[in-house]
Amino acid sequence: MAYYIGIDIGGTNIACGIVDDDFNIVARAKVKTNAPRPYAEILEDIKKSVRLACEELGISPSDASSIGIGCPGTCNTDGVVEYSNNLGFINVPLRTDIETEFGVKTYLDNDANAAAFGEFVAGAAKGANNAIAITLGTGVGSGIIINGKLYSGSNCAGGEIGHTVIVVDGRPCTCGRKGCFEAYSSATGLGKMTAEAAQLHPDSLLAKQIEEDGKCGARTAYLAMKKGCAVGKEVTESYVKYLACGIANVINTFQPDILCIGGGVCNEGDTLMVPLKKAVAEQIYTKNSKKNTEIAVCSLGNDAGIIGAAMLYRSI
Amino acid sequence: MAYYIGIDIGGTNIACGIVDDDFNIVARAKVKTNAPRPYAEILEDIKKSVRLACEELGISPSDASSIGIGCPGTCNTDGVVEYSNNLGFINVPLRTDIETEFGVKTYLDNDANAAAFGEFVAGAAKGANNAIAITLGTGVGSGIIINGKLYSGSNCAGGEIGHTVIVVDGRPCTCGRKGCFEAYSSATGLGKMTAEAAQLHPDSLLAKQIEEDGKCGARTAYLAMKKGCAVGKEVTESYVKYLACGIANVINTFQPDILCIGGGVCNEGDTLMVPLKKAVAEQIYTKNSKKNTEIAVCSLGNDAGIIGAAMLYRSI
Repeated sequence: MAYYIGIDIGGTNIACGIVDDDFNIVARAKVKTNAPRPYAEILEDIKKSVRLACEELGISPSDASSIGIGCPGTCNTDGVVEYSNNLGFINVPLRTDIETEFGVKTYLDNDANAAAFGEFVAGAAKGANNAIAITLGTGVGSGIIINGKLYSGSNCAGGEIGHTVIVVDGRPCTCGRKGCFEAYSSATGLGKMTAEAAQLHPDSLLAKQIEEDGKCGARTAYLAMKKGCAVGKEVTESYVKYLACGIANVINTFQPDILCIGGGVCNEGDTLMVPLKKAVAEQIYTKNSKKNTEIAVCSLGNDAGIIGAAMLYRSI
Repeated sequence: MAYYIGIDIGGTNIACGIVDDDFNIVARAKVKTNAPRPYAEILEDIKKSVRLACEELGISPSDASSIGIGCPGTCNTDGVVEYSNNLGFINVPLRTDIETEFGVKTYLDNDANAAAFGEFVAGAAKGANNAIAITLGTGVGSGIIINGKLYSGSNCAGGEIGHTVIVVDGRPCTCGRKGCFEAYSSATGLGKMTAEAAQLHPDSLLAKQIEEDGKCGARTAYLAMKKGCAVGKEVTESYVKYLACGIANVINTFQPDILCIGGGVCNEGDTLMVPLKKAVAEQIYTKNSKKNTEIAVCSLGNDAGIIGAAMLYRSI
């Protein structure tokens, strides 16, 4: 049995897992990221996470067939993290540093790309040739797989599908543009639309739900809708409209075998997916084609990042 | 010297050219398409165009190294035109029919893809690894080149960048969606915006320009602007805004080496390109990157289709 080490570096935790040939995570370790702090310190903790996971399994890091790292920010083909806003990294040679430490061939890619690759190798997009994975979280992350390999453009910064405008002059986005897909379809965007609707309808069940919960998030409108709230229903319908628009844009561009979406809002299951698939089907250019993109929910959850990182050697 | 036959099938003409190793078209022939009419008849005229071009050069079709065909519609990897609205083709085995006739290895792709590939091999996108070509004509056509090969998705119908929505609930598009990039950025879209502005401002120089010309097209607003018309200027600014939005979307997604645009409106030169490049630069996600997408004007004009078709063997 061969082992592949996958490291998923997040703003909060460095998660390391050892993945076997069947894509099972057979050992894990977690170390706090405590970002931002100097690269040298974070690097030591990344190494530590690898040693801890290997100890758990009773192997040495050098027994691994490869190491893969998913890191937030722009990761170039030389294995350098050019820039990571979350971690405060600027031009750090992360791949080489890990490869030198353990003497094991090491691969590096962006964390969203690694997670998408995880879904492609072992999750919802398994068996596809071309696939897109979109994560609806604080932002809208995405990874593009073309002919079985991750695609991130000529400067390794592509795949920012969240930052494509779907409403010219629309809602302001963190990237500086107005009307980005992310501003509408992220969990954050849904929360904002929900809060605005509650403010407009202070007597609605939706407004009461927010009061009850003491917060307004991506689940709020769905909770209110399930209690019969018309305002909540309107918000969820509006959310699906924007999400379907962005997804239809991606399909008209890439026509992948599979497009999978992940993130907390996908826990709504059919309540989200049935109207979403219907709205997308009405909008795609290939309505009448025999073969169309399958839309699915990501299946690996948080493990996608570790599994995808561990499998990065397959994307070269 | 090797020769490559390229066939560009349009709604009006079947244009055949013989291309040499330096990408020069060394012989040409043109036959009327007269679409729609039965496939068998059009096929005979496609063959005729090949024979005529070869006669001009004094070679036999079987002397050619390969034949390539660019055809409107969905062309699959089996060399079948699954559907061409313009030509009335449904599931016709065009590649095999031409290959059998001349005994020369034949390739088939969509006409917009072939033209994009022409720009990639011999035109504005020469030397790129990843490139996008966008044609601003009656519609907005596009071709995607990834790692030196045409990409058209899992069902050969991808690359419909013109049918990505940039204005939710915006202008109706021929595809059935509302607010497509094509509805704003095509020559047709520009003409419509111009006509609307003239109607709102019947005393403007723009309105007079339309009266003078007896028509309203993609050039009208630029002509009026150059004469000092504020309304015409506003239309061109609005056009650039939408065009820049769509182009920035494409760059944030693909981060290609080069994105080249073609079509009559590009004849405006710097009047179009200077404000366009500025607006795109302000919107892309990689404003601060060392390497960003070059935006250029397509350089092969109508020959892109023939040259790209002739070179299709390189995309396999």
